[in-house]
Amino acid sequence: MTSTLSLGLPMPVPEPDLPSQVRIYEVGPRDGLQAEPTAVPVEVKAELVRRLVAAGLTAVELTSFVNARRVPQLADARQLVGLVDLGSGVRHPVLVPNARGLEDALAAGVREVAVFGSVTESFSQANLGASRADVAAAQAAVTEEALAAGVAVRGYLSMVFGDPWEGPVPVAEVVAAATALAETGVGSISLGDTIGVATPGHVRAVVRALVDAGIPVERLALHAHDTYGQALTNVHAALLEGVTEFDASAGGVGGCPFALSATGNLATEDLVWMLTGLGIDTGVDLSALVATSTWLAGHLGRPTVSRVATALAPHLTQPDSPQARTET
Amino acid sequence: MTSTLSLGLPMPVPEPDLPSQVRIYEVGPRDGLQAEPTAVPVEVKAELVRRLVAAGLTAVELTSFVNARRVPQLADARQLVGLVDLGSGVRHPVLVPNARGLEDALAAGVREVAVFGSVTESFSQANLGASRADVAAAQAAVTEEALAAGVAVRGYLSMVFGDPWEGPVPVAEVVAAATALAETGVGSISLGDTIGVATPGHVRAVVRALVDAGIPVERLALHAHDTYGQALTNVHAALLEGVTEFDASAGGVGGCPFALSATGNLATEDLVWMLTGLGIDTGVDLSALVATSTWLAGHLGRPTVSRVATALAPHLTQPDSPQARTET
Repeated sequence: MTSTLSLGLPMPVPEPDLPSQVRIYEVGPRDGLQAEPTAVPVEVKAELVRRLVAAGLTAVELTSFVNARRVPQLADARQLVGLVDLGSGVRHPVLVPNARGLEDALAAGVREVAVFGSVTESFSQANLGASRADVAAAQAAVTEEALAAGVAVRGYLSMVFGDPWEGPVPVAEVVAAATALAETGVGSISLGDTIGVATPGHVRAVVRALVDAGIPVERLALHAHDTYGQALTNVHAALLEGVTEFDASAGGVGGCPFALSATGNLATEDLVWMLTGLGIDTGVDLSALVATSTWLAGHLGRPTVSRVATALAPHLTQPDSPQARTET
Repeated sequence: MTSTLSLGLPMPVPEPDLPSQVRIYEVGPRDGLQAEPTAVPVEVKAELVRRLVAAGLTAVELTSFVNARRVPQLADARQLVGLVDLGSGVRHPVLVPNARGLEDALAAGVREVAVFGSVTESFSQANLGASRADVAAAQAAVTEEALAAGVAVRGYLSMVFGDPWEGPVPVAEVVAAATALAETGVGSISLGDTIGVATPGHVRAVVRALVDAGIPVERLALHAHDTYGQALTNVHAALLEGVTEFDASAGGVGGCPFALSATGNLATEDLVWMLTGLGIDTGVDLSALVATSTWLAGHLGRPTVSRVATALAPHLTQPDSPQARTET
């Protein structure tokens, strides 16, 4: 793909012993938009998904089949899925909280779902409205049904590092929750630093403990939030432990609408910049991605929090011109 | 020191093989304010320095004895030095570009100076108005004179990783410039990622090359800019190579007024957060630091770019109240 950047990309200088390939799991349309105060029309969401795919992202989480009264930003879940090309070879998971959500997702033709639970009891009660044990049991049932229907399943764990009510989360509790989740048959297990308090040693300790407990590192993903500016550094720490899948959000939009201080997903652009600098191929066209998050920022009525997008956007050649669009 | 944070600090989880102690070299009053469009009265600068020292910072660069026509924000250099307690045991270096600057600094009673040069020819010509060889020769003469006067010297190198005109900077040129600088007798050598394009593998490669060339890692410092969101990750990479001194700016103010896209110093708060999480003692009271950068943001008329300060400021108990001030 042709780059429209007038400034260069970083010089690739590999770091010893890092993975050579990394999967970026884009959560902007779901985790990003569900936390934004500005509601975005479903046509804009569909265009966002198309642009993200055109920019080279190969896994773009679409939406969540949740109770529309609980997350009104995602009330258009079924409609959005209908507007997206599900047969393009790109993964388009949707979040499902329960059997009803799975039923709706299957009816909409979704080929991959994501289930979620909490390591901590407090967040489970506050966010999911049930004990973590009950949530895990419901999650296992949903996963079993999805797999039986031939649909892939991804597993999220929230509050892996710290919890706004309970403070630091013991690694043993993460191991217990992740091991139970792994046994249900999910593919990747995404470790959520929901309130952004993780630091690199903590990330490495958790990944090591999970690998020691028998979960292959290939099944682990990191979902880092940038609340305290640590997200990219935590990705670096996880890379050093061999983790190869990272959640990020174009333009850094979003967070978690229920968790205190859970603002700011890791910006996909900043992640792509680092990986490019490390010589790790992502397949993502950074200029197309920056053009996309700049365009999205216009719809959200606020500037992007991505440092890369902020730095590069002024240098893009008319990001919304037909020429630039063709190049994506 | 008592913390006024209502949210906790990160749980300390050390990372194997990292240094146990790190020096933070605070550049906000100089590198930060020289790049801000809003001029700050000298009394506010002096108060900033006092607050940074009260927050526990042990090296606070004050100002630059440069041509006032070139950097009008620093025309009050002599006056500022007169307002600061130079005998408190805290390091208060000032930048000196030439023999005239050193003369002025010595007359003002300064006990430590910093000299600077460029790895690249283009930046040297554009920023320093002379070839890098001429700059290095002048720098060596200034260092010799300062050391003869019993004044410590720190050395800065700009454009260590990338240059806006020349692109990626060959590591061999960094080695040549740093080796020559080391031989002049400076103490720390601060490696400047002036335009923020470094990534972790590049940082590690440069540090290794310098150590292989005979410069002890204890003499190396990293001056990371956050233009592309990589600053803290680059610090992490340097820590893994044993570097123990890092430049940062309270609230992330500043950049370089002469270099294209050279915006955003690493925020001291975000650095302190990571180091605290790694179990590395910095001696810095994060709540006092956040209160300081919040107060400074008011004088600059723009919000802080520090993620930590943004997240924590709303939770500080009346940051400017006498009670909070006493606790610093």
